[in-house]
Amino acid sequence: MSITGRPQATIMSNPRADRVKDVAKLGGRSVRLKRRQFLAEGPQAVREALSAHRADIASGGDGIVVEVFATEACLDRLPELLDLADGVPLRMATDAVLAAMADTVNPQGIVAVCHYLDRPLNEVLQAKPLLLAVMVRVQDPGNAGTILRAADSAGADAVVLTNSSVDIYNPKAVRSTAGSLFHLPVVTGHDFDELAAALRAAGLTMLAADGYGTIDLDDLQDRSALSRLGEGPAAADDGAARLPDLASPTAWLFGNEAQGLASEELAAADHRVAVPVYGQAESLNVGTAATVCLYASARSQRRGNRPV
Amino acid sequence: MSITGRPQATIMSNPRADRVKDVAKLGGRSVRLKRRQFLAEGPQAVREALSAHRADIASGGDGIVVEVFATEACLDRLPELLDLADGVPLRMATDAVLAAMADTVNPQGIVAVCHYLDRPLNEVLQAKPLLLAVMVRVQDPGNAGTILRAADSAGADAVVLTNSSVDIYNPKAVRSTAGSLFHLPVVTGHDFDELAAALRAAGLTMLAADGYGTIDLDDLQDRSALSRLGEGPAAADDGAARLPDLASPTAWLFGNEAQGLASEELAAADHRVAVPVYGQAESLNVGTAATVCLYASARSQRRGNRPV
Repeated sequence: MSITGRPQATIMSNPRADRVKDVAKLGGRSVRLKRRQFLAEGPQAVREALSAHRADIASGGDGIVVEVFATEACLDRLPELLDLADGVPLRMATDAVLAAMADTVNPQGIVAVCHYLDRPLNEVLQAKPLLLAVMVRVQDPGNAGTILRAADSAGADAVVLTNSSVDIYNPKAVRSTAGSLFHLPVVTGHDFDELAAALRAAGLTMLAADGYGTIDLDDLQDRSALSRLGEGPAAADDGAARLPDLASPTAWLFGNEAQGLASEELAAADHRVAVPVYGQAESLNVGTAATVCLYASARSQRRGNRPV
Repeated sequence: MSITGRPQATIMSNPRADRVKDVAKLGGRSVRLKRRQFLAEGPQAVREALSAHRADIASGGDGIVVEVFATEACLDRLPELLDLADGVPLRMATDAVLAAMADTVNPQGIVAVCHYLDRPLNEVLQAKPLLLAVMVRVQDPGNAGTILRAADSAGADAVVLTNSSVDIYNPKAVRSTAGSLFHLPVVTGHDFDELAAALRAAGLTMLAADGYGTIDLDDLQDRSALSRLGEGPAAADDGAARLPDLASPTAWLFGNEAQGLASEELAAADHRVAVPVYGQAESLNVGTAATVCLYASARSQRRGNRPV
C-alpha cells in the first residue's frame, strides 16, 4: 500500500485537534482576510493549486500552496498529486479530519491551504489587458465562481471583484471556479469608483452588461464580424462611430444578481449593452449573461480575418 | 388586512395535516410521476405558472395550476397574484404549512400544485422547430434548470430531456429555471435512440456539444456571419459543404456533466462541435457551454442580413 515518497509521519486522526480546528477556521471570511489564506478542497482544485504553485516557484515567486492534507486512499488513487506536491508540506489525515477541516461534507480525500492569489490592480493594467471581467456587487458565491470560470474559458486576462462583491475565496465560490481560480490573476480590494477611474485611465472600454441597455450585443457581434470578415465598408457607416468595437481592450461590468448595476455604475460605463432575450425569459442569470458577453469579446478579439 | 376577493375559509395552520403531507409528497419523483403533478415554489414560479395557466385555458386547454397555497402576508405584498389566480382553487396557509409542503426552507409565502407540462414529441416536431435543446444524461438539477432557462432566453422552440436525464420537475430544477419552465414546451419520456431517430426524420441537424469536437463553434459563427453579412462567396468555398450551417433547423445535444456524450451518442449526431476554450480552463460547465451554443444558433437564425 505504501508509495515511495509518501511521508511516513503519523496520520492525523483526531477531528478535534487544534491544528484541524485552525484549518477549519478558514471557512470564515475574517480569518481568511487576516491570514490571507484560503482552502482548496478536492482533487481538481488541489491539482490546479499545486500546478500554479510550481509555476510560481519556477518564475521566482514564493509559491501558492502552504500545506496539503490528504488521505492515503486519495494518494493511492491519484499518485500524480504526490508528484505535484513535491517540496510542499504534506500531512496524511483521515477522512474524518478532512471533513472537519473542509466546507464540503466530502472533500474527496485532499485539501490544500493556499495563499491569497490577489494581484495588484496596477500590475494587471500595466500588462495591457485585452479583456477583463469585473464583478460589481455580485453576491452569490456560485455566480462569482461561474463568472470566473467563464472568464478563464474565454481567455480573459484577469478577473476583478469590487469590495462590495462576495469573497472569491469563499469555499463555495472556490468550488464553483472548478480550478479556474488558479489560472488567471484576481484583483480585489477596490471600491467601484477608484476601479472605474483606473480602468478608464488604462484606456479600457467599459461595457456594462445591462438587461435594459439600448445596445444589442448581437448587433455588436455582427458589426465586428463584418469588419473582420466582410468586404464592405460597413465599419465606416454613419452612426457607427458611437458604437463600441468588441475587438478593443474591454472591461465588462457585471452587476448584482437581483438589481443589476446601479445607475451611477451604469453612468460610469462607456456603453450599456444588453444580451438579447429571444424567448419569454424575463432576464438572464448573471453567470449566463457574463458567459455570452465574454465569449463575444473573445471571438472578436482573437479570431483571424477569414473563417476556415 | 383583508383584500376583496380573498377566500374567507379557515387558514391552514397544521403542518402535520394530511393535506399538507400529501402536497409534500410531490418532493419525491415516484409520486410526481404517478400523479403527473409537481410543485412550483415562490412568487416568481407561481406567477409564471398562473400566467401559463390562463393562456392555456384561453386557448381551450384544461389549465396547468391545480391549486395554490399562500400566506396572507404574501398576497398583501403581491396582490397581482390574487388577480392572476382568479378561478384557481386558492387556500390560505401559514408559513409553517408552506415550509412543510415545499422543498425550499422558505418558499416566500406561496406554492402551486401544477400539472406536468410535457408535450408529445410528435406535436413539437410537427410545428417545424428551428432550435431544440436536448439534454442527454444531464444529472444535476441546477444544470438542467440553467440549460432550460438559457433555451428560453435564446428563443428555442422546445427542450427535450432523455429518460436518462434528471427529472425536470425536481424542485431544485424547477427553481433553477426561474420561471422559464412555463415558457416553452418540454418533451420527456424517450430514450436516446428513438429520440435521435425522430429528430433525424424531422430533418433537424443534430449538433453534439463536445469538448473534443473537431469543429470550432466560432468558425461556424464566422461562416454564418459571412454568409449573412458579407459580400464574398465564402459559403461556396471548397470544404465548406461538410460544415453545418448554424441557421438550419438544429437540435443541440448536451451530455452528462462529468462524462459528456457517450461515443454512440456522438456517432448519432451529424457533427461534433466544440465551444473553444481560449484560456487554461479544462472544460466548460455544461450549462455555460449550452448557453454559448444556443445563442450562436439563435443569432444565426434570427438576425437579418445587415447590422445596424
